Amino acid sequence: MLLKKNIPFKYVFGKIKYEIIAIAVYATIIAILYNYSHITRITIPLAIPAILGTVISLLLGFRSNQAYDRWWEARHIWGAIVNDSRSLSRQVMSFTYNNYHSEDVETFRQRVIRRQIGWCYALGRHLRKQDALKGLDKYISPDELDALQDIENIPSALLDNMGSDLHLALDKGWINSYQQVELDRTLSKLTDSMGKCERIKNTVFPHTYSLYIHIALMLFIALLPFGVIEYFGYVEVPLVVAISASFLLIEKMAIHLQDPFENKPTDTPMTTIAGSIEKNLMQLYAKSTADKKYKKKL
Amino acid sequence: MLLKKNIPFKYVFGKIKYEIIAIAVYATIIAILYNYSHITRITIPLAIPAILGTVISLLLGFRSNQAYDRWWEARHIWGAIVNDSRSLSRQVMSFTYNNYHSEDVETFRQRVIRRQIGWCYALGRHLRKQDALKGLDKYISPDELDALQDIENIPSALLDNMGSDLHLALDKGWINSYQQVELDRTLSKLTDSMGKCERIKNTVFPHTYSLYIHIALMLFIALLPFGVIEYFGYVEVPLVVAISASFLLIEKMAIHLQDPFENKPTDTPMTTIAGSIEKNLMQLYAKSTADKKYKKKL
Amino acid sequence: MLLKKNIPFKYVFGKIKYEIIAIAVYATIIAILYNYSHITRITIPLAIPAILGTVISLLLGFRSNQAYDRWWEARHIWGAIVNDSRSLSRQVMSFTYNNYHSEDVETFRQRVIRRQIGWCYALGRHLRKQDALKGLDKYISPDELDALQDIENIPSALLDNMGSDLHLALDKGWINSYQQVELDRTLSKLTDSMGKCERIKNTVFPHTYSLYIHIALMLFIALLPFGVIEYFGYVEVPLVVAISASFLLIEKMAIHLQDPFENKPTDTPMTTIAGSIEKNLMQLYAKSTADKKYKKKL
Amino acid sequence: MLLKKNIPFKYVFGKIKYEIIAIAVYATIIAILYNYSHITRITIPLAIPAILGTVISLLLGFRSNQAYDRWWEARHIWGAIVNDSRSLSRQVMSFTYNNYHSEDVETFRQRVIRRQIGWCYALGRHLRKQDALKGLDKYISPDELDALQDIENIPSALLDNMGSDLHLALDKGWINSYQQVELDRTLSKLTDSMGKCERIKNTVFPHTYSLYIHIALMLFIALLPFGVIEYFGYVEVPLVVAISASFLLIEKMAIHLQDPFENKPTDTPMTTIAGSIEKNLMQLYAKSTADKKYKKKL
Amino acid sequence: MLLKKNIPFKYVFGKIKYEIIAIAVYATIIAILYNYSHITRITIPLAIPAILGTVISLLLGFRSNQAYDRWWEARHIWGAIVNDSRSLSRQVMSFTYNNYHSEDVETFRQRVIRRQIGWCYALGRHLRKQDALKGLDKYISPDELDALQDIENIPSALLDNMGSDLHLALDKGWINSYQQVELDRTLSKLTDSMGKCERIKNTVFPHTYSLYIHIALMLFIALLPFGVIEYFGYVEVPLVVAISASFLLIEKMAIHLQDPFENKPTDTPMTTIAGSIEKNLMQLYAKSTADKKYKKKL
Repeated sequence: MLLKKNIPFKYVFGKIKYEIIAIAVYATIIAILYNYSHITRITIPLAIPAILGTVISLLLGFRSNQAYDRWWEARHIWGAIVNDSRSLSRQVMSFTYNNYHSEDVETFRQRVIRRQIGWCYALGRHLRKQDALKGLDKYISPDELDALQDIENIPSALLDNMGSDLHLALDKGWINSYQQVELDRTLSKLTDSMGKCERIKNTVFPHTYSLYIHIALMLFIALLPFGVIEYFGYVEVPLVVAISASFLLIEKMAIHLQDPFENKPTDTPMTTIAGSIEKNLMQLYAKSTADKKYKKKL
Repeated sequence: MLLKKNIPFKYVFGKIKYEIIAIAVYATIIAILYNYSHITRITIPLAIPAILGTVISLLLGFRSNQAYDRWWEARHIWGAIVNDSRSLSRQVMSFTYNNYHSEDVETFRQRVIRRQIGWCYALGRHLRKQDALKGLDKYISPDELDALQDIENIPSALLDNMGSDLHLALDKGWINSYQQVELDRTLSKLTDSMGKCERIKNTVFPHTYSLYIHIALMLFIALLPFGVIEYFGYVEVPLVVAISASFLLIEKMAIHLQDPFENKPTDTPMTTIAGSIEKNLMQLYAKSTADKKYKKKL
Repeated sequence: MLLKKNIPFKYVFGKIKYEIIAIAVYATIIAILYNYSHITRITIPLAIPAILGTVISLLLGFRSNQAYDRWWEARHIWGAIVNDSRSLSRQVMSFTYNNYHSEDVETFRQRVIRRQIGWCYALGRHLRKQDALKGLDKYISPDELDALQDIENIPSALLDNMGSDLHLALDKGWINSYQQVELDRTLSKLTDSMGKCERIKNTVFPHTYSLYIHIALMLFIALLPFGVIEYFGYVEVPLVVAISASFLLIEKMAIHLQDPFENKPTDTPMTTIAGSIEKNLMQLYAKSTADKKYKKKL
Repeated sequence: MLLKKNIPFKYVFGKIKYEIIAIAVYATIIAILYNYSHITRITIPLAIPAILGTVISLLLGFRSNQAYDRWWEARHIWGAIVNDSRSLSRQVMSFTYNNYHSEDVETFRQRVIRRQIGWCYALGRHLRKQDALKGLDKYISPDELDALQDIENIPSALLDNMGSDLHLALDKGWINSYQQVELDRTLSKLTDSMGKCERIKNTVFPHTYSLYIHIALMLFIALLPFGVIEYFGYVEVPLVVAISASFLLIEKMAIHLQDPFENKPTDTPMTTIAGSIEKNLMQLYAKSTADKKYKKKL
Repeated sequence: MLLKKNIPFKYVFGKIKYEIIAIAVYATIIAILYNYSHITRITIPLAIPAILGTVISLLLGFRSNQAYDRWWEARHIWGAIVNDSRSLSRQVMSFTYNNYHSEDVETFRQRVIRRQIGWCYALGRHLRKQDALKGLDKYISPDELDALQDIENIPSALLDNMGSDLHLALDKGWINSYQQVELDRTLSKLTDSMGKCERIKNTVFPHTYSLYIHIALMLFIALLPFGVIEYFGYVEVPLVVAISASFLLIEKMAIHLQDPFENKPTDTPMTTIAGSIEKNLMQLYAKSTADKKYKKKL
């Protein structure tokens, strides 16, 4: 799995480029003013930016925590999707009863497993607001694809189709009703995972908090040069830039982590995960079919 | 979904308007006194407000965390309601057995799904202390609506009606008792979600904590001008206002987030969520009915 | 529900009255000493109380968090009790099969629901170390009440009686064994809630922690006047009192929140919650019985 | 229950006795040196210990939190053991079907309940690395005890015996297979609780963290006298001792809380809890047997 | 169990050796410059590194927390694996029905238990990117091993084989379908644990956060000597080294804890845990087989 792909540093740094330049210009102007006009009155005690720095540190810590939690929850959910996909596939193989080695049961098993793979891709695309039907033709029948055309929430509809298939399997006697209930429970878990993704996607971090933290940060940066100019002269410029950049980087990192389904490089790698589920399930399905001889020996 | 609607900045700012004006006047008076009477004795070391600032930061951090948790839990619960509504609808479609394509089963399925939609709206109105029966006539039969007239807790009664319907379905042989138990389990989850909403609604953040934090904050603001007047003169006024406003804003934000069912702009968007559930379930129900031909082909 | 009842400020303030007076006297003595003997040597740098202040802030933050968690968990548990009472009542109504409209089944349903209400009251009284049997005669039969006379843990015995009733119902054919298992699961949840309440009740916050925090706080208050006397003179007295009161109030608040079942005004409102459960269940039971005509029409 | 037993203050204080004496000697030597040689150069700015103090506060906060979490989780687990013991006992009474009032079923019920009590004691002794078989003869038959002689993990073996008994009961028709599955689920919960206790027991808090925090604390204490000597002279000695003792106490408390199964006074009171389970289950069993007459009347 | 093995201090210290030497050289150069050229202008107020120190403390605290959580979650998961292995083994012994004391059932029981042991070892090796098949021949049949040759995810395939075996057992009538569903549920839990391990393994702590914290730390260390040189002269060198080492050690500890499956000394002791599961299950299996006589007496 390629989940180790990092958030490119350059990408993040690019986002604060203009802020950094503005701060550098601002700090330089103050240093020049101070040096040429010698108005020492503009210096302020370091304690002022220090108080603000403490408050902002706490707020950024609070912010980072919430953002990290959202990001980490997103990974949790997709981890659960991996697990439940595997369980669904194991259950559909080991629950269905195939007395006469009927082709129909085999088709049914395959259909459920392929639809599950398709569901993972579709959920990823749905969350990124892309066309969830694209590429789905590889995993479901044309008839089923056709019936999905006008549906808004494709992943939800696919799980409903899973339900219909369980109904059919019960009807045909391939599973009994305890097994149906257990398989349905796995569908409920997948429904939960899907709903949790949508909740994270649709519930933004309270905007006013973000705005306030940004304003407080700006105030802090604006005051900082006046606090350190006295001791450093021109050395003040890189110092102010370095400290400001630190704070701004944390803020940007939090902003990126907090929206894990927004089609950005910092995203949850949903397509990669779906691909790995596909590989995993197809390999086990192939093995399971090949195993028949082995099992006959038992 | 329109959950991205932000808490309007103007709305929040409006809440601290009068405090801000009072602080500005207070700071100005102190600046004038200091400038005209030159009583330097009124200045205090910045360390005093700095200590208080640290304590208040920690308390506001604690407060923000709890408020955020309440707000985020409210979203969790409504996310779970979305998931369980979908699962209930999938289960009622795929569990019920309809041997002779009887109209009764179809009516039953539809009644459960429509009632579930009505329940979501009713729960939202119930939590906001509005008339929960209003608009319910679109989702339940007149007879059922009639029987609810004198009931206090409408959503709870609707779930009981769900239970009666399951009883009926078992009686008629449309579902067997494992399926009844599984459907009832989904009802229990919905009961849990409803109870959690009521808990958040009815359990206020300890008022004395709030009061104390407010008093400590006022003390801090009252001392702040004396700490900075020495260095800034009249520039002290906007500085004090800016710092005070920062702290007050965090406090107000926490107050708003902590009560997520209070009919305010910062509210959990329950009506929007219920609307999206309605759209989702109705679309899938329509598709499922239309699918019958497709399923016959299998 | 009346859960919004606040912890009365006066009640909390009363608890710190004597400490406040002692601190005022202490601070005044130091101010007098300083003013009349002009021994400036007794002043200390503000950094000393500031270090202590930071440590204490962190410890009180830790303390407040744990106390709040206990208090909030207590509400969670009672929220779960509300939910599981409703689910139990819904299940007992919709699971029991009453073929011949037998009086016995009706009696059984009523007995379970009434006992569940009685259990809520009994658990509240049990946790407060009051006589759990008092008032129970309204909810259970004289025979059952009689058999409970020498039992120590009444709520636990009531849940066992629920179990016996399920056994009876299975025996009589009113429920089948899946339904028995599902009803028993709800009893297990109620057992869990009861056990959790007992755990919170019986596991105190580590006393030595509390003691240590109190000692550190006293040290801080003792040093504070020496730190600020230089700048404020007699104004020092109200300042020291105000800051000390802030810290003491947080400490007291934490002490109150941490024991949510101790029969104090800050208590979990168990009787109120039990009352609301009673009203809720009785109303739905009445409606359900009245509904019979409505259901016959289906 | 006697869970309110506190960690004796003297016990904890005893642990830091020698450290306190060493610090007192050290601080006195520095005070003497300073007073007689008047080398003022050895004083350092208070800001140095202050920085270290902040870092250490944060680390001790982190440490206290993790230690408290382990301690609190241990109580949670034993709370769950109480709950699941009660549920197991209720289930074994209400699930088993005794058509002909056979003695065998009564024996079976009693055996399961007594073994469960024995299991609680055995688990407590097992976690404290004591002989888990000691005293077990009161709760299980000599034959069963005999078969356990060479087993390493006694509690685990007892749960396996529970499983064998369920197998037997199913075989004899005293329970059906749903009830077996449900009882087994309670056994799985007990298995989980046992495994969680072992995890806490066997997974130590990362030692290097502890070591580092201790070193940093020592550095802080070593620097402290130099920071305050200038202002206090000989008063420095008690002040340094008091502050050091505060930090050391928090460290020791964390060390004690973090290992909740180590046979120390700060331990989880497992024997007390097991005793209370025994009393509870035996009383309810006795009552249940006595209740037979009452139930016949129904 | 040997889980108490600590992360060797020397090992961790070795990692910061070169950084420490570089910092010592750097601090010495600054001390020499200051002493010989007496350019006092290079000193900076201690408040500057103090602000940075606060920010870094908060960030390292955040970092330590996340790292500790990952490490602790890894232990949780392996604890759950222990529990579910025991439960699976108990269930397979007590659920399977062996009417005619058939050898086949005995073989089946043994096969499931041995495969479960093999699964634990295989999962450990899989997570460490070692050959998961190595040593597996001790636990599964040559045929089964053969069929696994080309499979990528061995642990996942083993759980699928478990599913096939349950299918077989249902087919042969050794278990009924409730028991199959319950055993399958245990397999689902093991699937979840496996997936959680993979999630932790494959989801790195956001790299940019780490990088930023490292840069800020370097800035802090670079400024530190200028802040303390004025007061300490050459004593500055060990002081700067000691403080820097503290911060670097915390950073390294966090880095080590955060990847609990990387084949390092700080690793989760998966082989040890698997070994202890093996010993536990084999002992209980042996006892259970020996118990037959005991059970016959009942």
